[in-house]
Amino acid sequence: MHQTKVRVAEDALDANTTIAHANRADFDRESVSVVNLMSAPGAGKTSLLEAVFRSGLGDVRPGVLEGDVQGSLDADRLSHLHVPVTQLNTDGGFGGECHLDANMVRTALPSLGLADIDLLIIENVGNLVCPAEFRVGEDLKAMVCSVTEGEDKPLKYPLMFRTCDLVVINKVDLLPHLDYDLDALLRNIESVNPGVETMLISARTGDGVEAFRDWLVHVAEREGVPA
Amino acid sequence: MHQTKVRVAEDALDANTTIAHANRADFDRESVSVVNLMSAPGAGKTSLLEAVFRSGLGDVRPGVLEGDVQGSLDADRLSHLHVPVTQLNTDGGFGGECHLDANMVRTALPSLGLADIDLLIIENVGNLVCPAEFRVGEDLKAMVCSVTEGEDKPLKYPLMFRTCDLVVINKVDLLPHLDYDLDALLRNIESVNPGVETMLISARTGDGVEAFRDWLVHVAEREGVPA
Repeated sequence: MHQTKVRVAEDALDANTTIAHANRADFDRESVSVVNLMSAPGAGKTSLLEAVFRSGLGDVRPGVLEGDVQGSLDADRLSHLHVPVTQLNTDGGFGGECHLDANMVRTALPSLGLADIDLLIIENVGNLVCPAEFRVGEDLKAMVCSVTEGEDKPLKYPLMFRTCDLVVINKVDLLPHLDYDLDALLRNIESVNPGVETMLISARTGDGVEAFRDWLVHVAEREGVPA
Repeated sequence: MHQTKVRVAEDALDANTTIAHANRADFDRESVSVVNLMSAPGAGKTSLLEAVFRSGLGDVRPGVLEGDVQGSLDADRLSHLHVPVTQLNTDGGFGGECHLDANMVRTALPSLGLADIDLLIIENVGNLVCPAEFRVGEDLKAMVCSVTEGEDKPLKYPLMFRTCDLVVINKVDLLPHLDYDLDALLRNIESVNPGVETMLISARTGDGVEAFRDWLVHVAEREGVPA
């Protein structure tokens, strides 16, 4: 029975990858670079984007696709900053999906105004497991990891840390108040994803936010990077 | 297609509920009370259990079932405290399940030594979505919500907060260092689950841990509470 379950899951992931390629072709046609931004709930994805949009992205025209189980709290926060935001809710007839998949993103494409943006940031549902399993047509994956979550998360959720091209370590302003071993976190990240880029930031104080902003501008400028 | 997807999910949940009832019958036969403990990654479930086990549960004999995608870091932490711990990993041929379901728990029953414990604490996978959808045969559900995650989480993950019988608000020692509106959190919890019990604790300093300990003892003592 377990074998069957694994096979069903693999088939679902194959179907997802096919749709992700279709999304990708549409993004490429409009020269839009796409970042899939993931994290645990409350790690600070939206706060980070607020900090970035407040200082601006220069000539890069950003857009955001907000994935949430329910509501539009994050979209409301970002739309105050005059960035085009589309809300995608994952709640269906039952408790709600814990991740975005390629088909959900596909249904949102007509609302995204791809012709008028250069960079699409997809803020995924807060979850360290399933969002890492479903490609949505992105160029790159980035994750936000808060120092309040403990140093062990790369070892407990290895796929998430392994699939990301960038790990943003957030809330470093709280380090003096935590029993936290930052070197252990960096070692754990390195053990599951050797050589992956990391940055230390505080979305709250603004420290290090510019490095993430520069990374986004860099992603937006290399249009059509292969997936 | 969406309708089909919802129906498949509902069928899966029905099958899960049937197995959860079977688990429950086994727990009842051995007079074991069961708490399903949930939270986002890094909210402090294991730290809370460590704090409780350090001070002890009086005459109540606890056992723990640890649910993780991969590894046994939390089980190792708890087994140092001389509590019987069984590890359950959810990683299969793909990225891993983001929650425990009734069947996974059922496979672990023979390892749990039910005859020798009064209270089983099931530490679920860190995730605010799917663990709330799958009953595993528990008497009560409790969740840990860290103040570092922001006040909006009850509105963004309403099913999790709605299904819980207790919300433990952890890391209150960090409140002086956060821009955090505790009253807003309590209002948001009340809006999705009116009257639910809450407690303020710091697993790190030990403040308030005794209230959670007393709650566990109380659960263990009312054997055979209807699901």
